[in-house]
Amino acid sequence: MANQALPLTPPKGMRDFGAEEMRKRRFIFERLRNVFLTFGFEGIETPSMERLDVLTGKYGQEGDRLIFKVLNSGDFMKAVHEAQLPEPSSKQMQGLISEKAMRYDLTIPFARFVSANRGTLPFPFKRHQIQAVWRADQPQKGRYREFYQCDVDVVGSRSLWQEVELIRVFAEGFAALGIQGAQIQINHRGLLMGLAERLGMPEKATALIGILDKSDKLPNDTLLDLFRKEGLSEADLALLEPLLNWLPGISPQAIKPLFSGFENAEKGIEELELVFDRCLDLGSLPGNASLVFNPRLARGLDYYTGCIFEVLLPGSGLGSLGGGGRYDNLTEMFGVPDLSGVGISFGAERIYDYMQAQNAWPQDLQTGLDYFFLHFDEEGAKVAQRFMLKFRECGARCDMFPEAVKIQKQMKYANQRQTKFVVSIGERERENQEASVKDMQSGEQITLAWDNLLHHFNSETHGHR
Amino acid sequence: MANQALPLTPPKGMRDFGAEEMRKRRFIFERLRNVFLTFGFEGIETPSMERLDVLTGKYGQEGDRLIFKVLNSGDFMKAVHEAQLPEPSSKQMQGLISEKAMRYDLTIPFARFVSANRGTLPFPFKRHQIQAVWRADQPQKGRYREFYQCDVDVVGSRSLWQEVELIRVFAEGFAALGIQGAQIQINHRGLLMGLAERLGMPEKATALIGILDKSDKLPNDTLLDLFRKEGLSEADLALLEPLLNWLPGISPQAIKPLFSGFENAEKGIEELELVFDRCLDLGSLPGNASLVFNPRLARGLDYYTGCIFEVLLPGSGLGSLGGGGRYDNLTEMFGVPDLSGVGISFGAERIYDYMQAQNAWPQDLQTGLDYFFLHFDEEGAKVAQRFMLKFRECGARCDMFPEAVKIQKQMKYANQRQTKFVVSIGERERENQEASVKDMQSGEQITLAWDNLLHHFNSETHGHR
Repeated sequence: MANQALPLTPPKGMRDFGAEEMRKRRFIFERLRNVFLTFGFEGIETPSMERLDVLTGKYGQEGDRLIFKVLNSGDFMKAVHEAQLPEPSSKQMQGLISEKAMRYDLTIPFARFVSANRGTLPFPFKRHQIQAVWRADQPQKGRYREFYQCDVDVVGSRSLWQEVELIRVFAEGFAALGIQGAQIQINHRGLLMGLAERLGMPEKATALIGILDKSDKLPNDTLLDLFRKEGLSEADLALLEPLLNWLPGISPQAIKPLFSGFENAEKGIEELELVFDRCLDLGSLPGNASLVFNPRLARGLDYYTGCIFEVLLPGSGLGSLGGGGRYDNLTEMFGVPDLSGVGISFGAERIYDYMQAQNAWPQDLQTGLDYFFLHFDEEGAKVAQRFMLKFRECGARCDMFPEAVKIQKQMKYANQRQTKFVVSIGERERENQEASVKDMQSGEQITLAWDNLLHHFNSETHGHR
Repeated sequence: MANQALPLTPPKGMRDFGAEEMRKRRFIFERLRNVFLTFGFEGIETPSMERLDVLTGKYGQEGDRLIFKVLNSGDFMKAVHEAQLPEPSSKQMQGLISEKAMRYDLTIPFARFVSANRGTLPFPFKRHQIQAVWRADQPQKGRYREFYQCDVDVVGSRSLWQEVELIRVFAEGFAALGIQGAQIQINHRGLLMGLAERLGMPEKATALIGILDKSDKLPNDTLLDLFRKEGLSEADLALLEPLLNWLPGISPQAIKPLFSGFENAEKGIEELELVFDRCLDLGSLPGNASLVFNPRLARGLDYYTGCIFEVLLPGSGLGSLGGGGRYDNLTEMFGVPDLSGVGISFGAERIYDYMQAQNAWPQDLQTGLDYFFLHFDEEGAKVAQRFMLKFRECGARCDMFPEAVKIQKQMKYANQRQTKFVVSIGERERENQEASVKDMQSGEQITLAWDNLLHHFNSETHGHR
């Protein structure tokens, strides 16, 4: 089996996660999952692979290209030889040798899941899903070929209570991660459609929305030029001014007069008003989060039909940390029409990078062990193991060096393992039935009777792990 | 996007997991993970894909065939056209169009991880890993193409304390799942090697071990015939008798005289004795688990070199629920020699099937919501939402029907959602500032003042979620 040339790195754009990274990643996922569960969004999982035809055509031409295809098992060339293509192209080949592909997002698999189980699921069906997705993208900083998505959706209800709950989920989620000041921006697709109607070019709605979508990245002059190219007059542009000069704080009502008589926009404003009214009734958002109407928020994906969301951290210089919106007909491609839904997504990987850059992690995530036991002979090891059993039963993470090596080596290992407390039970301590406990952060050292050793853990952690 | 023919099922041998299945699967994974962490085995994760050459040649010819290969992105046929093969076979093609593959187990990726990070990891390095693996096997009952493995390993120490701790991890793990009476069988490869030496055919050790490995599936007569085919005399077979007639309870010492002068076997017996001695010192195993010496336990994989383990549930009719052993040189293929390790694996999927068949799940896993709030008008919905906010902050899973539909429809939905308690706050209750709370299991109904509503959750769950 020996082979010196075997590569040690993961495939391009994919990552190994070591112990500390895993603690931090799990902190994000489990805190969010807990919020999702309290809001009644139960967890589901779908397989990593889907049938290729389930995925193709759903993410645009570029998306199709970025889907990882899985080679058929067995003698996959048989089908190719039978097809008798002299010099098949990659595209021709692909259809013959691959019928499965890696999940590209969690939305299409979710739509398939709902459609497959529509007879047994309770509707409205609320679910969360935290799983990896794969994209054959060019890797760059913050962009990976395998990464996690963190989605929350409810399908089967047009009630705006869903929007209200998802706004709270955003706020509670960021608060649970200790991220203060999340700004939850909201807009409504009806308003954007109404705008195109108001400008007399409803057929250009998608193009106009596309330009608005760039409004946080391009200067206003460039945006105006883009609008002019779509045929907008200077009078039209004047109409857009309140949108382009938008500042947080404007209320949906404020722009109502602009759209008088335009049904899509009026319905959009009405829905936004109801969402704001219900949110207000529930009181302030946790974690200093705020809900802000942003009339130029567009969201790229064109399957949204109602409220749309995006979460920013003002002043962080970061892009969106989350987003979502209401969609209709997501399951129509699987033969299940008229199932309105609304969903949001936490940008878990970006949140990780942000928390890492800010070192915003709870202290506890930077420790790997609660107690490390020093020992110097077989009897000492046995005593340590007996204590560890009791500590472990209480939930404490414990370890010792497997051999009775020099104390310096044991201490070095304890440090590498990111230990909170080092417990020493030498021969003298055994005689006195006591142990010395050293706080590795403060350097403080105390001596405890054996009977009190276990209390140390319970009082240190207040028993909450 | 509409396409009526789109399939609704996952790819062959792969599964969707709904809410209740997910609760049960997570129960297994998180309970085990918690045990692993208390024993100092930190979590790591490796990517779902590895470079193909990292995986091929590690699992035998059959294994190579079962590895899912991923098609290269972009114009993968370019390399094929350049190679100018007139009618390339699947094997020739595969080398040209695929350079990545799906993880087949967690062991090889772990070995790669350790080798890649040998300069920074603390040694001995203890890790657990709970992730999916993929095999293009023919699906059948209990065998899937995507399934989870649940591995615990320590590398970089020859100390037998590792074996002792892993025996405890097995016992604590099954106890944490509520599975009583796990029988942890132990043997030693040195003893099996010594047996081959004792029979005068050390070169046939692997073949003889292979026959012994079938001893729980085949009758003794068939085994004896297999041994005869390998050239064993009737005198040799007499020597094997105590092994073939093994019953739980025999101690390693008992067969010591058989191997006097055979170094491998003597070392094996010595190590087993030390493991038993240390385990005994730590007292009885939790969950009524037992440690049992089984001299004919062989374990199929030939990379084991020391103690080997297998966990059975006597009387269940099931095969192994876990196994493992000590190995040397696992990382040698990645250029890192002399790293002895020992690891175990929980058969999580089989454990799931067993618990499902026995309905051995904690009651709580069969509920999806703690509280469901009935409401009959906008004001009622607002009151419900306000209460739900408070409940959710305490960790309670809450929900309501999004519209104020008929009470029968709301109750039906509450039932579908597997609700523990239904809370009703109608107009009259609002006037009196009270709520009626119905236990959906017992049917019992009580009326509580609003001020006491939150206490209900805390006293019901004792706050432990």
